[in-house]
Amino acid sequence: MSELRLNVVTREWVIIATDRAKRPSDFKNNKEKRHLPHYLSTCPFCPGNERKTPLELFRVPDGENWKIRVVSNKFPALSSSGEKVRHEDGGLRRTVSGVGFHEVIIETPAHDLTTGLLDAAQLEDLIRTYKARFIAANNDNRIEHAIIFKNHGEGAGTSLAHSHSQMIATPIVPIQFRDRVQAALHYFDNTGEYIICVVSKKDREDGSRILLDTEHFVTLIPYAALSPFHTWLFPKRHSASFSSINEEEIKDLARHLKTILSKFHYGLDDPDYNYVIKSSRPRDDGNDYCHWYIGIIPRLTQAAGFEIGSGMFINSSLPEKNAEFLRAVKTE
Amino acid sequence: MSELRLNVVTREWVIIATDRAKRPSDFKNNKEKRHLPHYLSTCPFCPGNERKTPLELFRVPDGENWKIRVVSNKFPALSSSGEKVRHEDGGLRRTVSGVGFHEVIIETPAHDLTTGLLDAAQLEDLIRTYKARFIAANNDNRIEHAIIFKNHGEGAGTSLAHSHSQMIATPIVPIQFRDRVQAALHYFDNTGEYIICVVSKKDREDGSRILLDTEHFVTLIPYAALSPFHTWLFPKRHSASFSSINEEEIKDLARHLKTILSKFHYGLDDPDYNYVIKSSRPRDDGNDYCHWYIGIIPRLTQAAGFEIGSGMFINSSLPEKNAEFLRAVKTE
Repeated sequence: MSELRLNVVTREWVIIATDRAKRPSDFKNNKEKRHLPHYLSTCPFCPGNERKTPLELFRVPDGENWKIRVVSNKFPALSSSGEKVRHEDGGLRRTVSGVGFHEVIIETPAHDLTTGLLDAAQLEDLIRTYKARFIAANNDNRIEHAIIFKNHGEGAGTSLAHSHSQMIATPIVPIQFRDRVQAALHYFDNTGEYIICVVSKKDREDGSRILLDTEHFVTLIPYAALSPFHTWLFPKRHSASFSSINEEEIKDLARHLKTILSKFHYGLDDPDYNYVIKSSRPRDDGNDYCHWYIGIIPRLTQAAGFEIGSGMFINSSLPEKNAEFLRAVKTE
Repeated sequence: MSELRLNVVTREWVIIATDRAKRPSDFKNNKEKRHLPHYLSTCPFCPGNERKTPLELFRVPDGENWKIRVVSNKFPALSSSGEKVRHEDGGLRRTVSGVGFHEVIIETPAHDLTTGLLDAAQLEDLIRTYKARFIAANNDNRIEHAIIFKNHGEGAGTSLAHSHSQMIATPIVPIQFRDRVQAALHYFDNTGEYIICVVSKKDREDGSRILLDTEHFVTLIPYAALSPFHTWLFPKRHSASFSSINEEEIKDLARHLKTILSKFHYGLDDPDYNYVIKSSRPRDDGNDYCHWYIGIIPRLTQAAGFEIGSGMFINSSLPEKNAEFLRAVKTE
């Protein structure tokens, strides 16, 4: 019989549909492989085409050239100039002007590489860049929340193949974030513990869903994974905001993230995926109950009417089996 | 500049990205048209293949034949037999056994028809069937919540082309539903009014986002539509549960739903879509604050890392323009 599991961090229920469970290897990407050239003259993110992108906001230099560039999104969802204006109309129509930041982080000059295949030093620089842009966005007093994320592949919502991440910083706090803070706060009030620290500790003792455990980070497939290979990467040190990551942790995270993304790349044949850094603002770093983390969501299944209509999920795979499968995948 | 709008019913924020807004007609389905035969010998839902489906649970007869059949899903997410057993493990691992119902509603014997192209009498029978199965599921005391939904097209999560809907009845209440009840309850406590009644009334006065207004139902694109052409179909009579729909309303809803789905079909070239009946249980029908409705979600864009990571949405279209476009679409 299937089993319903509650995701205690997100408070979402998932039906682990054991009766129609697929084997981990059934989820391998069966789309045609991506074969990208090392350089593409028409790609706005390739070196030499810097003038095809909007304003450069940041770069990691490499002599005259660059290793990483951050530019404004060409079609930004939010505008970096303007006032934050809030309107209410009897409580039914609440609007806030679309001020904020929408940045593109070009991860490498190489057109044919992807995040998991970058070398560790490049990944360190990428994480440092994330940190710098995250802090810069939060220093603007119109900003209430910032999200750093990556869309890899068309099924994950990107149209540009050259490896890039994005940051969107908004003038409001999303309700999803508020709800999770609330849940973590309740847990702290009831137990005196941080829910993510406890989940991470218990799961490390159990071991069955752990993918990788290094000095400062642990990656696991959650007990109530909402979709096949849905993955959480937790820092071990309790900290509410990604902005507090230190140099030693950056070095560990670079190698850790590279290993995890490589396991996906080789084990599941380069699947489409998203990853997201879920974090409180720098000024909320001192709080007791939040804990920043990275969610990695391979896009192997399609949300349908049931998921949209209920906010519940059906996962036709076993988190424990999927973790076992990925643990066994060799990376370079 | 873009505008952030709060969806007051779901408490979700959406960025209405006016700077990159597309015209309504840009969202037309550009995939190859579906050309289906009237009858397909290998289709388990076509007449003559009744033995290829699991147990028949209900039928609308047509002499010896049938107009509508309800069968168990061949690969059910939940099992109709067994006890509802709940386990807790220190609050961190909460599970409920996977009991419940997962039914398939075969909407027509014709392989080449789709919901919006059924005749009104057939749609009336379909709504009566939804009502009967919804009530039957809720009569089982293991069931806490039931969702009736439709997946149309591969992009909406279906693999079988023969027109069908589904019902999943679960032994728990999804958190999304709990949250929305809570929001509606707060609104009622603050104002003495039902939020959906107020939204529906104000939007009818305004008119700019109304698609169709008939005796008992009104359909509109919400002010804070989360995605292009995201649509709400509201009953005008305040009622928390779909189970209370009466014969007169069923007749109106059949014609109403047919018109709306036809507008999508002809106006957007048969897009993939989901619809979902969002309803309280029959025994909660008397409550003051909930209001059942049908959400219709054309699958015209792809959720990416930002949406997954934040629970916010970017809508690159204007609800008012899209409503104007659909109002003008002629149906038979």
